[in-house]
Amino acid sequence: MRNARPFLIALLAAAPVWGQPPAGSRPAASNIPGAEYPRVGDDLRVTFQLRAPDAKKVQVRLGQTYDMTRSEDGVWSVTIPPQVPGFHYYSLVVDGVAVNDPSSHTFYGTSKQSSGIEIPEKGVDYYDVKDVPHGEIRQLRYYSKVTQAWRRAFVYTPPDYDSNARARYPVLYLQHGGGEDERGWPVQGRADIILDNLIAAKKAVPMLIVMDKGYAVKPGEAAGRGGPGGMFQSRTFEEVVINDLIPTVEKTYRTLTDRDHRAMAGLSMGGGQAFQIVLNHVDKFAYVGGFSGVPGGNGGPVINTKSDFGGVLADAAAFNKRMKLVWFGTGTEEPERMRQGMQGFREAITKAGIKFVYYESPGTSHEWLTWRRDLNEFAPRLFR
Amino acid sequence: MRNARPFLIALLAAAPVWGQPPAGSRPAASNIPGAEYPRVGDDLRVTFQLRAPDAKKVQVRLGQTYDMTRSEDGVWSVTIPPQVPGFHYYSLVVDGVAVNDPSSHTFYGTSKQSSGIEIPEKGVDYYDVKDVPHGEIRQLRYYSKVTQAWRRAFVYTPPDYDSNARARYPVLYLQHGGGEDERGWPVQGRADIILDNLIAAKKAVPMLIVMDKGYAVKPGEAAGRGGPGGMFQSRTFEEVVINDLIPTVEKTYRTLTDRDHRAMAGLSMGGGQAFQIVLNHVDKFAYVGGFSGVPGGNGGPVINTKSDFGGVLADAAAFNKRMKLVWFGTGTEEPERMRQGMQGFREAITKAGIKFVYYESPGTSHEWLTWRRDLNEFAPRLFR
Repeated sequence: MRNARPFLIALLAAAPVWGQPPAGSRPAASNIPGAEYPRVGDDLRVTFQLRAPDAKKVQVRLGQTYDMTRSEDGVWSVTIPPQVPGFHYYSLVVDGVAVNDPSSHTFYGTSKQSSGIEIPEKGVDYYDVKDVPHGEIRQLRYYSKVTQAWRRAFVYTPPDYDSNARARYPVLYLQHGGGEDERGWPVQGRADIILDNLIAAKKAVPMLIVMDKGYAVKPGEAAGRGGPGGMFQSRTFEEVVINDLIPTVEKTYRTLTDRDHRAMAGLSMGGGQAFQIVLNHVDKFAYVGGFSGVPGGNGGPVINTKSDFGGVLADAAAFNKRMKLVWFGTGTEEPERMRQGMQGFREAITKAGIKFVYYESPGTSHEWLTWRRDLNEFAPRLFR
Repeated sequence: MRNARPFLIALLAAAPVWGQPPAGSRPAASNIPGAEYPRVGDDLRVTFQLRAPDAKKVQVRLGQTYDMTRSEDGVWSVTIPPQVPGFHYYSLVVDGVAVNDPSSHTFYGTSKQSSGIEIPEKGVDYYDVKDVPHGEIRQLRYYSKVTQAWRRAFVYTPPDYDSNARARYPVLYLQHGGGEDERGWPVQGRADIILDNLIAAKKAVPMLIVMDKGYAVKPGEAAGRGGPGGMFQSRTFEEVVINDLIPTVEKTYRTLTDRDHRAMAGLSMGGGQAFQIVLNHVDKFAYVGGFSGVPGGNGGPVINTKSDFGGVLADAAAFNKRMKLVWFGTGTEEPERMRQGMQGFREAITKAGIKFVYYESPGTSHEWLTWRRDLNEFAPRLFR
């Protein structure tokens, strides 16, 4: 019997189910240092692994839920079908509890710290760190008189900001989605990398990007949930942007402060917020963008172009003359409810005679690759 | 029977075991938005909770491991004894698998993304955001010729950096510990808040703080593990600091570039690195700090003050004249092995006649409150 264990190991090494990641597979870029799993194959299949000898059932939840298979030594694994490139939130489910994969970095999204995985996109490098001049992302702490609390925003400054000490820059205010926070665009979105690359290629003008947290409650105000229908309906964040954030940014950084040099955009919930804030304050913004998010875009009522937002859309000719860009986009694979909301908005403003640019991200759903593409498409149209 | 459920709810509400957090308890500051647990009581006991109806066993691991108790509806909870204030990494253990608490934010430490909990410290506010001028933390991307890869560091700039456009500033290079990364000091350490408060109180001079990742491998070099004995022994990070990081920082920011305006410090592994780098390059640094970390501090051999670091400690009079500050500290409750390593170093340099400042953090172990205190004690002594 003394040879039983080596024999067993040899048998396991040859087993096709576990320990055999797809040929040519590599650890995901989103893994913590030293973690060999999850691994992404050339065919974009992904293999997950978790050591859990005492668990009864372990699953991976990435879009859908996949059962993992237990090896004799208590290591669970599964290889799932090819994934769409870009960034996905995911969980492991251990005996019914959705938890993070200890092998991956975590990202604030889905209203919690969630595992994320980066699936490489062949032949595409606009969101890779390249040998071009790099801007900075700065952490800005500021006091909000509206909420009577300290807040934090991140501010992208373009590569020449410090060396070009007299220049003033236009500003894009850029919001995350429901269940995310101000870290969404700097981390999951790679906003600085996308802009560094656009600016180096002279496809976008140097600009600041301000990325705040899209939640705000006044003292005593009921704290809604992060998603659409909660905080989004509140106008407190709008007050923070108008009364606290913009004045702080313009006092702190060398900005161009007229409406022609101020834009706002956001994704999902943040797209709804961007439209709400811009349309309520067209004296302050000349550009607006909604990435998988527009008013009524996630199932709310279709806008009334005669009366909503103080009737600013009612006179299309005046509006079209005033606004330099109304831009929105969606992924072709987004859930039907979201696509319907987007198309309802599109039809309403088309009928009202509003000029806009519409973009579809091929093959992507309500996910970060859609929004990275959106930013890459939207930013070049700003401040020209 | 229609009244059975309300009756059961009333019974549960009165039950002493679950659902009864310590009186006056509040959600921890480190919770994700909206999470009611973990809760910290006035007495600093902490109550954890996890919904896991299908799990056989759930525990909390925070220093030691505590079994949680299952309620009839599958919610597990436990109240653990009073915790030391400050920041602690912790895990939940679900059927034997250590995972993050879905209710807490995560932090890169213990060589993975780990749950963390902030325990309030009564009457102490040096690491709280206060109504003082705030500096920024900037994300700096730079290319390392040593490792032939892009790296990321965070740079604290003091409150007046942008408005005082001709001023030049001294620089503290400040390193995280093993199993952490460049996010350690900005997030867990609250380095910017501590410095903002010190500078506002005129207890420290305005300075930059550069926080890089303390790991570096050259192409083809074996990648050691993050902890002491692995990367720490490598001199590759030292090469990165000297040949890539310092030149990049001094090219990018308005710095004072003589040795009298350059300091290096770090915690645990980072303290060992700081001493190694400074003592190998006393032509470049006049200040060194080790927070729970010195050469040989984590169980390595006691230094040889005659021959180590090119013999720079052998002539104590010359060394003492040259160095403006040698500072190190430890927590009184650190593990015996760590305290012994620290005391071995202390005895060796005392015997060699080296001048130094030694600090003990009362009641704290190898943890972030020790290191926040260290920074708060160390920074005021720099660049005077």
